[in-house]
Amino acid sequence: MSKSIEPRTLRGFRDYPPELMIPRERLMETARDVFRSYGFAPIDTPAIELTEILLAKVEQGAEIHKQLYRFKDAGDRDVALRFDLTVPLARFVSQHFSKLGMPFKRYHLGTVWRGESPQAGRFREFMQCDFDTVGTVSNAADIEIAMVIHDLLTALGFERFVIHVNNRHVLSGLLAALDLGDKAVSLLRSLDKLPKVGPSGVRDEMIKEAAVTAEQADEIIALAQTQGSNAEVLAQLAERFGNNEAAKKGVLHLGEMCSVLKTAGIPEERLRVDLSICRGLDYYTGTVYETFLLDDLEIGSVCSGGRYDNLTARYTKQPLPGVGASLGLDRLIASMEKQNLLPKISTPAPVLMAQFAADRLGDYQRVARQLRAAGIGCEVYTDAKKVGAQLQYAEKKGFKAAVIAGPDEFAKGVWNVKDLAKREEKPVGESELIDVLRKIIGDFANCRV
Amino acid sequence: MSKSIEPRTLRGFRDYPPELMIPRERLMETARDVFRSYGFAPIDTPAIELTEILLAKVEQGAEIHKQLYRFKDAGDRDVALRFDLTVPLARFVSQHFSKLGMPFKRYHLGTVWRGESPQAGRFREFMQCDFDTVGTVSNAADIEIAMVIHDLLTALGFERFVIHVNNRHVLSGLLAALDLGDKAVSLLRSLDKLPKVGPSGVRDEMIKEAAVTAEQADEIIALAQTQGSNAEVLAQLAERFGNNEAAKKGVLHLGEMCSVLKTAGIPEERLRVDLSICRGLDYYTGTVYETFLLDDLEIGSVCSGGRYDNLTARYTKQPLPGVGASLGLDRLIASMEKQNLLPKISTPAPVLMAQFAADRLGDYQRVARQLRAAGIGCEVYTDAKKVGAQLQYAEKKGFKAAVIAGPDEFAKGVWNVKDLAKREEKPVGESELIDVLRKIIGDFANCRV
Repeated sequence: MSKSIEPRTLRGFRDYPPELMIPRERLMETARDVFRSYGFAPIDTPAIELTEILLAKVEQGAEIHKQLYRFKDAGDRDVALRFDLTVPLARFVSQHFSKLGMPFKRYHLGTVWRGESPQAGRFREFMQCDFDTVGTVSNAADIEIAMVIHDLLTALGFERFVIHVNNRHVLSGLLAALDLGDKAVSLLRSLDKLPKVGPSGVRDEMIKEAAVTAEQADEIIALAQTQGSNAEVLAQLAERFGNNEAAKKGVLHLGEMCSVLKTAGIPEERLRVDLSICRGLDYYTGTVYETFLLDDLEIGSVCSGGRYDNLTARYTKQPLPGVGASLGLDRLIASMEKQNLLPKISTPAPVLMAQFAADRLGDYQRVARQLRAAGIGCEVYTDAKKVGAQLQYAEKKGFKAAVIAGPDEFAKGVWNVKDLAKREEKPVGESELIDVLRKIIGDFANCRV
Repeated sequence: MSKSIEPRTLRGFRDYPPELMIPRERLMETARDVFRSYGFAPIDTPAIELTEILLAKVEQGAEIHKQLYRFKDAGDRDVALRFDLTVPLARFVSQHFSKLGMPFKRYHLGTVWRGESPQAGRFREFMQCDFDTVGTVSNAADIEIAMVIHDLLTALGFERFVIHVNNRHVLSGLLAALDLGDKAVSLLRSLDKLPKVGPSGVRDEMIKEAAVTAEQADEIIALAQTQGSNAEVLAQLAERFGNNEAAKKGVLHLGEMCSVLKTAGIPEERLRVDLSICRGLDYYTGTVYETFLLDDLEIGSVCSGGRYDNLTARYTKQPLPGVGASLGLDRLIASMEKQNLLPKISTPAPVLMAQFAADRLGDYQRVARQLRAAGIGCEVYTDAKKVGAQLQYAEKKGFKAAVIAGPDEFAKGVWNVKDLAKREEKPVGESELIDVLRKIIGDFANCRV
């Protein structure tokens, strides 16, 4: 018990100190508020599950087998830490189906673990933030997911973003009309690389992997790159592939989405029908979503998802369709950090009450409690140190204001309020304190206490 | 891939469906708000740490060795899931000491895992909710912890509770004055059983385990049971043990706490100096806290903690004193469930917008978005089913109101609002909708969207 141990975290894991955790909690709370406002309800599930449950839907040889944190528990059961929130949702819905009532709308913010090779900005432990509507095939649910994505990003403070939508049926119909339906998976996998390798790279791969002609490859790529307003793109598709049932359905659903979002007041430029979006199309079966920040395209999609036909295969015979998406919370925070959108503060309270006289601690805390009750967070400094040291502490942590009262102020019945940014100080009567401080702190950290 | 797998959770683990997760999230958010209002900042740490880190401060043979979820990771490192949030705090503060700045006030809500035998209401995975001020020996920090406990419980809706406080120095002083200082650990361990086994049981154990006389045992028990107001108890102690330095310091600190809380506006009956509180006194070195709900005493303390001299022993040479407590979140929820204080709802939104005509989905969502922007959560039903089925869904989940509009209403330009509790329905113009709904939903779930 005497040797000292070097304090450290495991590789691929990290601590969240206050300056990162304060904005992270704010993002999570904002996301929860938006989910709730649409009637999505929270659930939680265990971090540890039986391995056979977690891997039930995973193919042999899939990467996740190697990434799983898997071990024997004290009862010699083969268990593992969850690697996503989709498998737990499938297990949860199958297990509690009779009690839930359909449609079932849930959100789930939870930690997941994957033993990936650590890279810059990638961790082995991260937060997922999923929302899904299961138990309905109605396009109203698909449309709503796009609305939630929109309202999430605006609530988080973003204005310059675009939600790209596509529909598996449209692409299937296109390929069927070109008589290439049987090569869909391979062709879409190549098409997905368009932003990375460009049209010629995609064409080469399509020719090589799917054995199509250069003309066929060019036609697919040209279609995927169809330009124009949403109405124009949809009109072109309807004209060209209107006699293919799958494509027709996909076009109809995308059209409904555009129309409802417009009526509901969502700016048209924030939704784009984009036929080149096909990531995950071998998993998704209808609508797909990806969301890009115009001021940080290179960070990739910050909210992605889609519609699936059967969430609960392997756990129950009853097929359960659904639609949902996942907000890339840590990716958003990384982007906000890069764009200097995060306040550099490590205090959740905007006001520091300095302490001079230990025998007046009751008065300091009495006034501090009045501020807190008025929604103004107020920390009372713990020690009656020199005021300079206390103000230094306040500035280092990012407090907006300090309230200072020593024997002189108590004698006069005033509290000195210091605006720490402007370095201005003035005496204020107790009854005006809340109003004066509100002006100084503004909407500090959107403090909701 | 074809055999179906029974969906189930591990023994000792549980799912949180919406009806449990909605109040759980509300409690967590309220707790966070109170912590922040006092300037406690959030942190988070990894769920997985090196076993040598987690067990650095644990004695050989301690129960936790058997309870640990411990395994080898892919890099063959000996790792384990955290079993509390105190060890991670000690590691965190040691590792980041130079950047943090003292005093450091943090809260941490996080899941911990212990492979205990599952019992009713006890799980192997549970949430801890800790708050601590480290880096100061000032009694102001101890006093503030009591205030936070008070404001936490009132913010959570409790009024009938008492925070019991004691101080290790008082008990040490008492025992020293009785010339029993060297038997303190054994005697306090026996005294701790007072509520369970009663005075005679404690006396028997003290005689047997600490080899004291029956008279000595009776004297300690009588002291622990000292009755009276806080002022009376403290006056008795000062009189009797005033020449013992340790006891004097303890009495002084407890007296300061009573006085500051009173001045700060906290009702006197909610703080009780209780010399019989000694749980954890072989760990704590100063103030100790336990908190009891008067309407559910048998659930035990819902918020406990104390002062310690050195959090970071084993990780760093610099001794780091601190004081803190832990809110028993799951215990509180269990008690609220027992007392029927939890709303039986599984929707986080109070209003259901029924759907009749798919071609009016844009209007439904347009109005629903107006409600959401006004802070009224509104779910739009996904399918244009019969209104009866939609209202049944609303009632089952606990919605307060339904907004219903079909072709007739659209023709008239009104929205029918149904109060689901009163079963009253009336047509309302769009501009009055928010006011009418606000009256029906009241303070539904304290929805903060």
